[in-house]
Amino acid sequence: MGLSRRTFTFAAGVGLGGLVLRDRRWPLRLPRMQIDGDRVLRHLRGLAAFGRTPEGGANRLAFSDADKAAREYVLGLMSGAGLTTAVDAAGNLIGRRPGSQDAPPVMFGSHIDSVPGGGNYDGPVGAIGAIEVAQSLAEQGIRTRHPLEVVVFSNEEGGKTGSRALSGEVESRELELMTASGKTIGEGLAFIGDNPAALDAVRRQPGSVAAYLELHVEQGAILESQEIDIGVVEGIVGIKRWNVTVTGFANHAGTTPMNQRRDALLAAAQFIWTANRAAVERPGRQVATVGRLEVEPGAPNVIPGEVLLSLEIRDLEMDRIDELFGDMQLEAMRIAEETGTTFAFDQFYVSRAAPTDERLRMIIERSARELDLSTLRLPSGAGHDAQSIALLGPVGMIFVPSVAGISHSPREFSWPRDVVNGVNVLFQAVLGADTL
Amino acid sequence: MGLSRRTFTFAAGVGLGGLVLRDRRWPLRLPRMQIDGDRVLRHLRGLAAFGRTPEGGANRLAFSDADKAAREYVLGLMSGAGLTTAVDAAGNLIGRRPGSQDAPPVMFGSHIDSVPGGGNYDGPVGAIGAIEVAQSLAEQGIRTRHPLEVVVFSNEEGGKTGSRALSGEVESRELELMTASGKTIGEGLAFIGDNPAALDAVRRQPGSVAAYLELHVEQGAILESQEIDIGVVEGIVGIKRWNVTVTGFANHAGTTPMNQRRDALLAAAQFIWTANRAAVERPGRQVATVGRLEVEPGAPNVIPGEVLLSLEIRDLEMDRIDELFGDMQLEAMRIAEETGTTFAFDQFYVSRAAPTDERLRMIIERSARELDLSTLRLPSGAGHDAQSIALLGPVGMIFVPSVAGISHSPREFSWPRDVVNGVNVLFQAVLGADTL
Repeated sequence: MGLSRRTFTFAAGVGLGGLVLRDRRWPLRLPRMQIDGDRVLRHLRGLAAFGRTPEGGANRLAFSDADKAAREYVLGLMSGAGLTTAVDAAGNLIGRRPGSQDAPPVMFGSHIDSVPGGGNYDGPVGAIGAIEVAQSLAEQGIRTRHPLEVVVFSNEEGGKTGSRALSGEVESRELELMTASGKTIGEGLAFIGDNPAALDAVRRQPGSVAAYLELHVEQGAILESQEIDIGVVEGIVGIKRWNVTVTGFANHAGTTPMNQRRDALLAAAQFIWTANRAAVERPGRQVATVGRLEVEPGAPNVIPGEVLLSLEIRDLEMDRIDELFGDMQLEAMRIAEETGTTFAFDQFYVSRAAPTDERLRMIIERSARELDLSTLRLPSGAGHDAQSIALLGPVGMIFVPSVAGISHSPREFSWPRDVVNGVNVLFQAVLGADTL
Repeated sequence: MGLSRRTFTFAAGVGLGGLVLRDRRWPLRLPRMQIDGDRVLRHLRGLAAFGRTPEGGANRLAFSDADKAAREYVLGLMSGAGLTTAVDAAGNLIGRRPGSQDAPPVMFGSHIDSVPGGGNYDGPVGAIGAIEVAQSLAEQGIRTRHPLEVVVFSNEEGGKTGSRALSGEVESRELELMTASGKTIGEGLAFIGDNPAALDAVRRQPGSVAAYLELHVEQGAILESQEIDIGVVEGIVGIKRWNVTVTGFANHAGTTPMNQRRDALLAAAQFIWTANRAAVERPGRQVATVGRLEVEPGAPNVIPGEVLLSLEIRDLEMDRIDELFGDMQLEAMRIAEETGTTFAFDQFYVSRAAPTDERLRMIIERSARELDLSTLRLPSGAGHDAQSIALLGPVGMIFVPSVAGISHSPREFSWPRDVVNGVNVLFQAVLGADTL
């Protein structure tokens, strides 16, 4: 362990001795540098009581009564961690701790709202973990150079309202959108006690955040299947989605010979298969999914005349999404020719990729190495608040393993050991980011 | 023409001279043997007035007001053709003409009800054609050996109620089934003026029909595309239908790498493709169709966890349906293995194949040849009343070309020349069947 610690501090460009002597950012003895794992788990259990479902999962929709009550609980934890709390007009819970210098803040946090019928890890691990880091810093008397901001963002699952308000991405018409809670976003923001009319006031400028770090469960099975402790997120993938309409000719399934058919579903089936092969065979970690498919007219005795399906491609690089889509379009043209059908593609959604900062990736890797934890660089296939904050400053993300990769489900689970490891890495990484 | 007539009468085993001398079944001069084509077309136009739609099609659902009025019109045509009319308890319109001998009847007919938004040919061509044959026989003073029965069957499109009542296949609980008219079958039978409680009384015994002939439009494009005048139906195909459930595992489309997916839709797509290949590559004229497909959960950003699809196979031989299905099941096992999914097959519908009688096929072929019309043997992929009557005696079916194979649509169309050819062939074939 001694060797790896030296490696870290040296590679970070700051001598161990100097660091410790200067302002106690880098504590002398390792045992004092750990967070309180039992407290993390206790607070996670405490939070899980809000919106608990019979299956043991969480129904804590943004702007619901359960969400509102959980926010009060979290504000209490923030205060208990010695943070000065505030709620901004976007419903973000912010806990502040001053730094030794007048500098932009190092920010870290996540969210506590859930999808309908969600679990207890997606969001809470990062939110509770961030508060724990603040509390451990306070208890260990560590003063950082940068001011710290622990942020629990509002309505992550329903559109990342809180973090996107900070980056100025929330359009006014968005306030009219209905959420799963039964309230519009505007009504929801008013419900959790803020003034949505003042939303513009929360907007921050690019460069106003020294670094943002987010701890989160992986929501995939890569770390677990490879027995890796900590995922170092390379970035949040970009997403493009298309509606694909396959048009053939509906006809009698009994009287139309096989060679006279223009079967839209047969063509769609070929497309689904070749699109999958194109995504699998290309080097890289892109994913492509056909998740929705509807058949017209949809009767057992009628040859399908039209199929509407969704196509989604995700990759860390938008150009690679476009290249893969181009390959798929070529395949579609070939299939259309062979089957007497036509394909039409209509793009209906884009989410830009958000790469993480290479310095923060290295800080996370070295923080893990300090703790004898193995790491793997991987993309985040899911969206996160870090994506919005990337418009304001460098971001880094820490993943911990999700058992069987199950997510957005009551069966979502991460081992306590992995959760505590993640919070410890966040703790170290916050200290590392403070050196930037 | 002289040669082919000789061939026919000789092959039918009855000498030309004897036939003519005995009872004028075989008239001496060909011109007198033709039906009145103009009258056929006039009666078809007359019938088309009942339930006519703005698109020029027919909405003449069984048991609707339009159906009831059209039945009165048809009874009038039957009377005008010299037939003694009756309506049985199953709502069948029956026109009788005595024969010279006490023998089982030669029956011919079809139906006049339509699907919702149907056309003017499916049913009417055979029904009006049958009445025309009776009228031509009367006008030409031809007396047959067998009694003749012209039957217009009730509710063909909604379950072949009329013809299945004759063969004793209608179960009492079927009377409770709702039809597209908004009436149950029982209510519908009462509406068109009969006593459904007496349904059992219409049942006939096997062997009670000397021959049944039905003229119908092809509802496919085989005859048109091969420029054939007359289709000689080899039989009505059997049908089996299965619900196929493909079970994978629903997961996050962003966080689940391509090689860790168990995508039910990807597996279903492979199955649709291989099932199609199996049906196409096997010798024969079987057809296989996947017409319905539903995806769960069905969101663009979720890997499909379950797919429910319908599989239908039709063939003239039930054994061949089972063999082809066996091949498809083997393919499904291979796909399940490759994709980490499971396939479950649940058969939910069977309709037994009904082969036509070889003697009647030959009679139809010779009748067409007499008229210088080309013929092709082909299966009927659609169901017909002949299917039920096949349980009572030998059946034969005559097809005429459908333009572009369009059926169950206002765009359903057959050329007047083809319709008249079909009625002429029916006329000859009835005379041929009378020799059986």
